[in-house]
Amino acid sequence: MALIVQKYGGTSVGNPERIKNVAQRVAKYYSQGHRVVVVVSAMSGETNRLIALAKEIQSNPNPRELDVMVSTGEQVTVALLAMALMEHNIKAKSYTGGQVRILTDSAHTKARILRIDEEKIRADLHSGYVVVVAGFQGVDGANNITTLGRGGSDTTGVALAAALKADECQIYTDVDGIYTTDPRIVPEARKLKTITFEEMLEMASLGSKVLQIRSVEFAGKYRVKLRVLSSFKEEGEGTLITFEEDNNMEQAVISGIAFNRDEAKITVLGVPDHPGIAYQILGPIADVNIDVDIIIQNVGHDGMTDFSFTVNRNDLANAMAILKNSILPHIGARDVIGGDKIAKVSIVGVGMRSHAGIASKMFRVLAEEGINIQMISTSEIKISVVVDENYMELAVRVLHKAFDLDQVVQ
Amino acid sequence: MALIVQKYGGTSVGNPERIKNVAQRVAKYYSQGHRVVVVVSAMSGETNRLIALAKEIQSNPNPRELDVMVSTGEQVTVALLAMALMEHNIKAKSYTGGQVRILTDSAHTKARILRIDEEKIRADLHSGYVVVVAGFQGVDGANNITTLGRGGSDTTGVALAAALKADECQIYTDVDGIYTTDPRIVPEARKLKTITFEEMLEMASLGSKVLQIRSVEFAGKYRVKLRVLSSFKEEGEGTLITFEEDNNMEQAVISGIAFNRDEAKITVLGVPDHPGIAYQILGPIADVNIDVDIIIQNVGHDGMTDFSFTVNRNDLANAMAILKNSILPHIGARDVIGGDKIAKVSIVGVGMRSHAGIASKMFRVLAEEGINIQMISTSEIKISVVVDENYMELAVRVLHKAFDLDQVVQ
Repeated sequence: MALIVQKYGGTSVGNPERIKNVAQRVAKYYSQGHRVVVVVSAMSGETNRLIALAKEIQSNPNPRELDVMVSTGEQVTVALLAMALMEHNIKAKSYTGGQVRILTDSAHTKARILRIDEEKIRADLHSGYVVVVAGFQGVDGANNITTLGRGGSDTTGVALAAALKADECQIYTDVDGIYTTDPRIVPEARKLKTITFEEMLEMASLGSKVLQIRSVEFAGKYRVKLRVLSSFKEEGEGTLITFEEDNNMEQAVISGIAFNRDEAKITVLGVPDHPGIAYQILGPIADVNIDVDIIIQNVGHDGMTDFSFTVNRNDLANAMAILKNSILPHIGARDVIGGDKIAKVSIVGVGMRSHAGIASKMFRVLAEEGINIQMISTSEIKISVVVDENYMELAVRVLHKAFDLDQVVQ
Repeated sequence: MALIVQKYGGTSVGNPERIKNVAQRVAKYYSQGHRVVVVVSAMSGETNRLIALAKEIQSNPNPRELDVMVSTGEQVTVALLAMALMEHNIKAKSYTGGQVRILTDSAHTKARILRIDEEKIRADLHSGYVVVVAGFQGVDGANNITTLGRGGSDTTGVALAAALKADECQIYTDVDGIYTTDPRIVPEARKLKTITFEEMLEMASLGSKVLQIRSVEFAGKYRVKLRVLSSFKEEGEGTLITFEEDNNMEQAVISGIAFNRDEAKITVLGVPDHPGIAYQILGPIADVNIDVDIIIQNVGHDGMTDFSFTVNRNDLANAMAILKNSILPHIGARDVIGGDKIAKVSIVGVGMRSHAGIASKMFRVLAEEGINIQMISTSEIKISVVVDENYMELAVRVLHKAFDLDQVVQ
């Protein structure tokens, strides 16, 4: 008899019928003798509805007040799910983040969890209750309502599992597990039975939007056994996210291929090649909270070099303006060019560490298809390339095949 | 410079535009140097929407969970109003009932306020904030969310005014004050500048739905100066609810005429006329939480009497069934008859105490119009009659004229 934390996202609780389905699934676990804590998101669309309402009052809504509003989304869902569980003759009780109490810092709309008081939940579980907790929210030290930012319900689930020392944290989503790549692009994409935390982190940050990255970090840090499952399929074991050392099976060299086309490329041409230039370029960009992903500076010649980096497409115009108006005149670079017709494709796998030649194989496969590589970035378990966005899908397909991801190896 | 508590109902905050209007009105008071606490209800329609959603899950929603859901309505409004105030460059801060903390008993969906911790609000006011508090809600001793029941936002306003020792509690509604009777029925109905608490209580309980009765009781108990105003008209002083001893003006004999057609009449015929019979009849009715209003038992003859009372129309079928199945067989009464084609019309006024002949004048006026009186009930400052519902409007009109309510006397 295990203690399980289950998390259901907005789509899974999108209407009363779906909430009843979730209750049925929880009831099944409960009737098997497990103790169950359920974390739920707002009904899909609700958070956006609330934000739109706030924007009718303030174009840039006050973060504290926005959190007060937005947190009502989950508050409604926890009550509905508790009611639905009662209809199965299960004792159930809802908690808001503040009631639990999930203590966070005061960074409204993107708060981080500091501590969870789990005693009340533990007592309720002991008394036979299924406990339903509002995801995505908490309170700060002054009892202000905070939210964890988009996808934060995953983090709530994992943090609760850690605090309760749960046997497993199950994340129910609209996909039934983690795939080698997006099946919409590669029909042969295969569901992985297991994936390591490190690979999952690389996959998540690279655009496989199954799990919120912070929740994966959290799970890794607190050694929470994490499983991704479908809330719409009755059967299936989903994908278990493991610690590398747990994994005794034959490991594939590459576990998956991630991609995204959310980025834009900026190149500063003719940059004087002296120490501190990277900071001079990226400091002002960071100051306005523009995230930079890939950064490339090559060896210079004649005292000059080119400096390239990628930002989110939405930030391209802003970053270009800052570079042209504030940075270029100071550093004496020749010009800056930007473009958003790019895509990033990455191969990810812990097996890469012990296998040489993965990068060269990747480059050869792309070259054989005539796909030009614009930028390259590598980490221990990942190789990313930036290509023309028109070639993204082709690149994913040929790499998927070349690395035998359509073959069952696990 | 005064400390004012303002309460705005659901219609006054029914959409973003109206919320902006409320902010403008609050800003006006604030700019005059007043300290302002605002209590708001949920946007009109929202509470019903949430209850309907709950009923899609549970036909009879669990009260604890229903309160968790329904309380989100005001939580959204307080945040929106705080944002709207910020747009006027006013420092504003929202509070849920739990954040304040408004401590209530644990009677979910109809909780009563036990205590208000007003220190945080006082500190915020001192720092120049306008404080926006969610009406209608609180928490019990175990931090469960509770609601005060329909109209409870008025009670929140009055209770806050009492706790903060505010100079005035202003209740903004969609009417601009208390009228001698409903202007839709009597176009000559006049707005009262003042009305006593006792009269207001009789008016409210008799169906003038401007203020929630519990809030008026509360205001009377804690000597809170209460004013009813329109949230849609810019000007006007509304109606001030006074304590009788404050009122030095020439007092009209009758202040107003209330009426409702929400009731139904039940008569138990041929009841053995012995002690305890009223309890035997009404006890089982009270046991199922059916409220009884007028109760009439006349002197019996031949050891038998008839016993009549009124209940809410919605409870008629239920009350009749209980009487027929459980009560009649035990008490040996002859029969029970019920009907809902009735209306209650009441004249209310503290002046009645010192003026004889008010009742006989009322009965004469109705007789002259051929209106048959089915039941009569009197209190110190009110006389109510039950008549055929077809004659209700006529009765109100002729009484309004007969008691000179269309003449300005204040």
